[in-house]
Amino acid sequence: MSEEKQTVEQNETEEQEIIEEQAAADEQQEETNESELLQNQINELQGLLEEKENKLLRVQADFENYKRRSRLEMEASQKYRSQNIVTDLLPALDSFERALQVEADNEQTKSLLQGMEMVHRQLVEALKKEGVEAIEAVGQEFDPNLHQAVMQAEDENYGSNIVVEEMQKGYKLKDRVIRPSMVKVNQ
Amino acid sequence: MSEEKQTVEQNETEEQEIIEEQAAADEQQEETNESELLQNQINELQGLLEEKENKLLRVQADFENYKRRSRLEMEASQKYRSQNIVTDLLPALDSFERALQVEADNEQTKSLLQGMEMVHRQLVEALKKEGVEAIEAVGQEFDPNLHQAVMQAEDENYGSNIVVEEMQKGYKLKDRVIRPSMVKVNQ
Repeated sequence: MSEEKQTVEQNETEEQEIIEEQAAADEQQEETNESELLQNQINELQGLLEEKENKLLRVQADFENYKRRSRLEMEASQKYRSQNIVTDLLPALDSFERALQVEADNEQTKSLLQGMEMVHRQLVEALKKEGVEAIEAVGQEFDPNLHQAVMQAEDENYGSNIVVEEMQKGYKLKDRVIRPSMVKVNQ
Repeated sequence: MSEEKQTVEQNETEEQEIIEEQAAADEQQEETNESELLQNQINELQGLLEEKENKLLRVQADFENYKRRSRLEMEASQKYRSQNIVTDLLPALDSFERALQVEADNEQTKSLLQGMEMVHRQLVEALKKEGVEAIEAVGQEFDPNLHQAVMQAEDENYGSNIVVEEMQKGYKLKDRVIRPSMVKVNQ
């Protein structure tokens, strides 16, 4: 085979190898791109997943807090459910107790009074059942949480800062003062 | 170059090519495996993401339902908050109204009665403010939602199925009957 022909053949093989190498490189590049693409896609998905996970945790936490808060609200609203109506009933109870002070001078009034005293007991009983209780005042140490001082006295029979008279009865609904006692306090 | 040498060389190149091809194939296989792995990972992540998304939607829906339900419960519990205490007060109100029936035969009883009638009005006013109202009975068409028939009458002055007498007053709290009227109904 003449030298010239050999060089031509050699050149052709070299060219062929270059082409193949180029093709291989291209293919290699393509594959790297594809892997990179897939890897990017994976990173993106992992980011989305983490985001979704955090959001789920947040919504679950909000939900639990809401449940706890609405349970507490319901309990509080149940505990003091009758506050409005009891507050509105107190003036009638005051009038009732004033009306019962009368000294009967005849049998009919006496029997009416007895009937009314029974009604009054029923009313107080119904209120008590709901947690309504009168606040103790006379003879007690003055307590700003329970009593409202409207007058002062100087009475040796009582110690200082002791309630000597109750001008208007106070009431509590369970642990909540719904109306403080109006009292006269000793100096 | 002797033919023998040429064949040896040729064999070597062919072997070389086979090895290269094998290496290329291996490399190709490896890349395919890697892509497959990445693709599997992507599918898995997409599955997880979908799962997380569904769970998030479910928790959000549960949360909204819970909010709506607890709001309705709170509204209902507020609307009928005084039902217990009102139900307990009714016997006292009954006794009160019976006691007020007395015919005063002297001034003291008359004045006590007037005082007690005022107290009674205050009580009824306080109950009314909370939505408590007496159920109309006498002269009304008998209504099983409002009235409880305890006796029957035959009275030409009334039409059939008309309430002729109220044995015990009934009460509603807003739109809820807390005690039906006990009545006598005309045949």
